[in-house]
Amino acid sequence: MTTVGILGGGQLARMLALAGAPLGLRFLVMDQAADACAAQFVPMLKADYTDEAALAEFASRVDVVTFDFENVPAQSAQWLAGKVPVFPSPRALAVAQDRLAEKSLFNDLGIATPRFSAVASRPDLDRALSEIGAPCILKTRRLGYDGKGQFRLASSDDADAAWEALGGQAETVGLILEGFVAFQRELSVVAVRARDGSFRAWPLTQNWHAKGILSASLAPADASPALIDQALSHARAVADELDYVGVFALELFERDGELLANEMAPRVHNSGHWTIEGAECSQFENHLRAVLGLPLGSCDARGRACMLNWVGELPDARAALAVAGVHWHDYGKSPREGRKVGHATAVAENARGLESQLIALGQALGREKQVSGVVAALG
Amino acid sequence: MTTVGILGGGQLARMLALAGAPLGLRFLVMDQAADACAAQFVPMLKADYTDEAALAEFASRVDVVTFDFENVPAQSAQWLAGKVPVFPSPRALAVAQDRLAEKSLFNDLGIATPRFSAVASRPDLDRALSEIGAPCILKTRRLGYDGKGQFRLASSDDADAAWEALGGQAETVGLILEGFVAFQRELSVVAVRARDGSFRAWPLTQNWHAKGILSASLAPADASPALIDQALSHARAVADELDYVGVFALELFERDGELLANEMAPRVHNSGHWTIEGAECSQFENHLRAVLGLPLGSCDARGRACMLNWVGELPDARAALAVAGVHWHDYGKSPREGRKVGHATAVAENARGLESQLIALGQALGREKQVSGVVAALG
Repeated sequence: MTTVGILGGGQLARMLALAGAPLGLRFLVMDQAADACAAQFVPMLKADYTDEAALAEFASRVDVVTFDFENVPAQSAQWLAGKVPVFPSPRALAVAQDRLAEKSLFNDLGIATPRFSAVASRPDLDRALSEIGAPCILKTRRLGYDGKGQFRLASSDDADAAWEALGGQAETVGLILEGFVAFQRELSVVAVRARDGSFRAWPLTQNWHAKGILSASLAPADASPALIDQALSHARAVADELDYVGVFALELFERDGELLANEMAPRVHNSGHWTIEGAECSQFENHLRAVLGLPLGSCDARGRACMLNWVGELPDARAALAVAGVHWHDYGKSPREGRKVGHATAVAENARGLESQLIALGQALGREKQVSGVVAALG
Repeated sequence: MTTVGILGGGQLARMLALAGAPLGLRFLVMDQAADACAAQFVPMLKADYTDEAALAEFASRVDVVTFDFENVPAQSAQWLAGKVPVFPSPRALAVAQDRLAEKSLFNDLGIATPRFSAVASRPDLDRALSEIGAPCILKTRRLGYDGKGQFRLASSDDADAAWEALGGQAETVGLILEGFVAFQRELSVVAVRARDGSFRAWPLTQNWHAKGILSASLAPADASPALIDQALSHARAVADELDYVGVFALELFERDGELLANEMAPRVHNSGHWTIEGAECSQFENHLRAVLGLPLGSCDARGRACMLNWVGELPDARAALAVAGVHWHDYGKSPREGRKVGHATAVAENARGLESQLIALGQALGREKQVSGVVAALG
């Protein structure tokens, strides 16, 4: 009997556990929140991630450790790695936690990125601003997600306001100024690398955001073979360089046929949720296969899929379930503004079928706006 | 928050819970065995099914009750139905628990069956034998499954041995003598009926048994539209007559193009496990949708699927997972002779792809014999 330990007990841990149960796996999650939604189905150790006694107990009860979210303190991951195998490695986690380190790595590997510069002080912000130019975005280097820890600057006149908002974090999590990219669309590669170095990627996914949070994903995205090759080779280069083990996502901007790497997420990713029903083997199962040293499953798509995120509160499940081909995912969380509480995935044999489903689903739920971008991309 | 109570905590309850988690459901299983495998993921009330205090606690903690197996005492189901909605109804359960009652119902509905006769005593067995003729099978009317509680008679000379084996149960669970059918193949309809009477069926499934236990299922089965229509209309007639709510299976023999109904199982069924990956909506999800009064999902097949049962012990998961398109289901049970401990489902776009997968899987696991019938049917 193999027990997988997951740091973080949110919806990603929950979906990992649901995917791992058929593999005969047991799970233990560790989370700081008593109401972590994975704990509805698997045992939980409620503790602070820096509590060494709790980490020791956690390590003693599991055979391998992985992550539900990347903002686990690097020292905790490092400490655990001394006791039990940890995948992805603390080094990969540390790089992916830090916007400056990951963008530097991308550039080192010849992967284009938006322009960026570390910002250490208020005068340094002016220096970076003159270097990168406006519009641009000041971001925390670490601990940011879903648009949190970001401030957009339309011009250098916004420097004071940006510093007011985030300057206090310059010496704690660090800051980075990134050039704003007038991209045509956002894409992501969700990929998996095994312990033996074998690498697979699911088809390229196109993403739509609303208020900084993923709103919809379409896969496979329409893209030229050359663009797909470039995206996948970028993902592979990053994974190989980090000796990465497990699933990760590489977020990309497409601008005039060129791909710019925005960031990587060192875990199963929201833009890969469609793989549960839309691919031969889901990102959740393949992540577990990778960290356990099992053969990887096929990442081939099964038809065309669109994932719609439910943020804040769930729409009417009954109305959604009446639309054929729609799969519902309620994370068992209470509603809260800006919180990811669930998603739905529509799967069809082809673009026309998916388009019809999305139009029906948008109408049934009063979510016409949320599906409109995907419908336009399919049209 | 809706909690579904399941009487029985085996692999069917486990797969129901795994299918229900994404719908935001919670579960409580009740089982007599402390090591019931569903309890690895959902809370369990360990108690005897006839323990009225336990049934009262169970009823108080759930919103609806359903079954993991049909041999729950009819009185317990009836008692629960006075406290909380129970689906399928105790009446449907009572009919399906009794081979005599279900076969009589089939005949009343104009559905052909093997010849049968109730057997109440040793002289009565002789009377039934002369009526039905050998070869035939003496079976317990209730509590039999997977070939248990059955005795084959090659000729009337075997009557004493048959009575020796099962006669003691004539006055407890009752006995039935059934004519042996020289059928060409075994088929099943797995279907679902909703609270509002709407009815859907998954594609017809062909089944292979070994030692009285299901060994392999292939879906969709190759069959003429007329045969498919007949099978589905039989299933619908039975479900409508019983005002059945939930998933059930109707097992059929095909003999010279004619269908004979063998028995019905008033629950999700082993011959429907392929629907997890091989159909738009699985039998587990649709059973939950039905008992909760939600719209039913599509039963359309996604490609061609074959389920292989693992009985006694699991084959090598690593070898199986190396075959693309193979999905593994380890029930988390300890090995034991004759025990269903898991299954695998191979899914492909078409018959040729499935055939290749099965040949590869059979070789990888040393299970060439188990896949041979399916491979021949696909050839």
